[in-house]
Amino acid sequence: MRTVVGVMGGGVASETVVEAAFELGRLIAEAGWVLLNGGRDAGVMRASAAGAHAAGGLVVGVLPDDDTHRASPDIDIAIQTGMGDARNVINVLSSKVVCVLPGGAGTLSEVALALKSGRPVVTLGFPLGDAFAKYYASGRLVDATAPADAVAAVQRFLTEDRS
Amino acid sequence: MRTVVGVMGGGVASETVVEAAFELGRLIAEAGWVLLNGGRDAGVMRASAAGAHAAGGLVVGVLPDDDTHRASPDIDIAIQTGMGDARNVINVLSSKVVCVLPGGAGTLSEVALALKSGRPVVTLGFPLGDAFAKYYASGRLVDATAPADAVAAVQRFLTEDRS
Amino acid sequence: MRTVVGVMGGGVASETVVEAAFELGRLIAEAGWVLLNGGRDAGVMRASAAGAHAAGGLVVGVLPDDDTHRASPDIDIAIQTGMGDARNVINVLSSKVVCVLPGGAGTLSEVALALKSGRPVVTLGFPLGDAFAKYYASGRLVDATAPADAVAAVQRFLTEDRS
Amino acid sequence: MRTVVGVMGGGVASETVVEAAFELGRLIAEAGWVLLNGGRDAGVMRASAAGAHAAGGLVVGVLPDDDTHRASPDIDIAIQTGMGDARNVINVLSSKVVCVLPGGAGTLSEVALALKSGRPVVTLGFPLGDAFAKYYASGRLVDATAPADAVAAVQRFLTEDRS
Repeated sequence: MRTVVGVMGGGVASETVVEAAFELGRLIAEAGWVLLNGGRDAGVMRASAAGAHAAGGLVVGVLPDDDTHRASPDIDIAIQTGMGDARNVINVLSSKVVCVLPGGAGTLSEVALALKSGRPVVTLGFPLGDAFAKYYASGRLVDATAPADAVAAVQRFLTEDRS
Repeated sequence: MRTVVGVMGGGVASETVVEAAFELGRLIAEAGWVLLNGGRDAGVMRASAAGAHAAGGLVVGVLPDDDTHRASPDIDIAIQTGMGDARNVINVLSSKVVCVLPGGAGTLSEVALALKSGRPVVTLGFPLGDAFAKYYASGRLVDATAPADAVAAVQRFLTEDRS
Repeated sequence: MRTVVGVMGGGVASETVVEAAFELGRLIAEAGWVLLNGGRDAGVMRASAAGAHAAGGLVVGVLPDDDTHRASPDIDIAIQTGMGDARNVINVLSSKVVCVLPGGAGTLSEVALALKSGRPVVTLGFPLGDAFAKYYASGRLVDATAPADAVAAVQRFLTEDRS
Repeated sequence: MRTVVGVMGGGVASETVVEAAFELGRLIAEAGWVLLNGGRDAGVMRASAAGAHAAGGLVVGVLPDDDTHRASPDIDIAIQTGMGDARNVINVLSSKVVCVLPGGAGTLSEVALALKSGRPVVTLGFPLGDAFAKYYASGRLVDATAPADAVAAVQRFLTEDRS
């Protein structure tokens, strides 16, 4: 079974965030992991898929829609759910580790759902503050400031959870 | 169509939180609203259902399970989803306003999912801090410190959203 | 906990089917059961909700949508799922017995999902033939030709499953 | 975007059905399509995944569970939904064409959900009879008796739906 790493973040994203998402996608593909995201042709989803593809990686997009009209062209496998935000649950359950870039309430829901289900979370340029203090303290939620640091944190979680 | 008000919060809860949840449930029923919660016989779910029942209210429980084995005895109508945490989406979409008492990641996911879908959120004894600053600023997320204040805030949102 | 009986069937329905759905809704309410259906303002959903309301019953509509724009005015409690056809699973899991009037593939999916999860099914004017032979043989799927017969079959299943 | 073809069928299956599922999986992989199934290590799911793997194909398993404990070892990408039977909706929405081998009510629900959402269905050794007469007449549901015939039918649907 392939190792799947999730990348979540806003459908609207600044240029800095888009660049970080692309680079993170590239590094995930280079590590040999499958990249999973929310599949849409926007923001962090589009950029991370493009980055993974630039490095020859495989990309799974879990869409809120029941078709592929809004899917990024860099999605290899489109999981069409027709379930709206309930697909956020699938995003995080299907990821061994969830990486999170800046986003709004949808992204925060994915952080919370991941932690609820025991999936470790690595934020990239998106420190979450007091509401998540308990999870920072547990070590299952960590902040990174550069894509390479985020990937190193993912690697540590994968090693820990396997042993 | 009846007005449905959601009450979310931890399955594990302190005595203070349990008392607040019971009182909030009672006041919601007295206001003539249907109380909707996560349906389980634990913590904020059990207490809010009991409070609503004590005032003769109607309680809908949206269960993560595909049966009613873990349902609170104070649930009138058990919506059995068999969908685990994906039922959190249904909880908030089905509520005109979502009240939130202290809880863990599941509760935080409901806050985020509610705000994502435009449902206003009233916290009770559970200020959420920086991660949700944008939503506090928008006025769609407010903090209350007593059940009566929470109910007053719900009433304001219901009036606003109707006009 | 209230006894919930589901009524499924086409969003497009003949006059005969609409009349049967109304009458079935009326009889379900008179029996003191909560009627649950797919919530939309069309076909069997609209008619069964109206029938239950005519007899003072309580109606729960489990909508495929994330709002109530397409809900029948005779729904008391609108469960808004935003999950499209995945709400069909919730319809049948939440019903102690599922009644089925003529419909298309959506209705057939509800029959199959109900039987998969052990919920008994009573068809009304909608015999299902060979594809469901195994379930007819098991006694968990029965055909009725008049609303009163369907209600009698529901009553038998409720009594059996309780004992 | 890769072309995804679904293979559905019973978790319990006769030796004949298991052989047909393996052969169908092999042919789907040889055609260059991604095989998607329900992911479990049983019956048609296990056999079709093994067949696709034997031909070097890529296999996506959409699991009802929130972990991979019951997943087939021949699944490359495990979509973990935690949604029970609601994952059947995802199975069919994510498939361009759905192939169906003999199964029980779960399999019938997938046939119905596929047709509801406009996905064509090819049965293999599993003629469905009167309940689905309307869909046979529409040409969107066809029966095959050998794996090679099923694959030819899939190819025709893919060509039609593209043009």
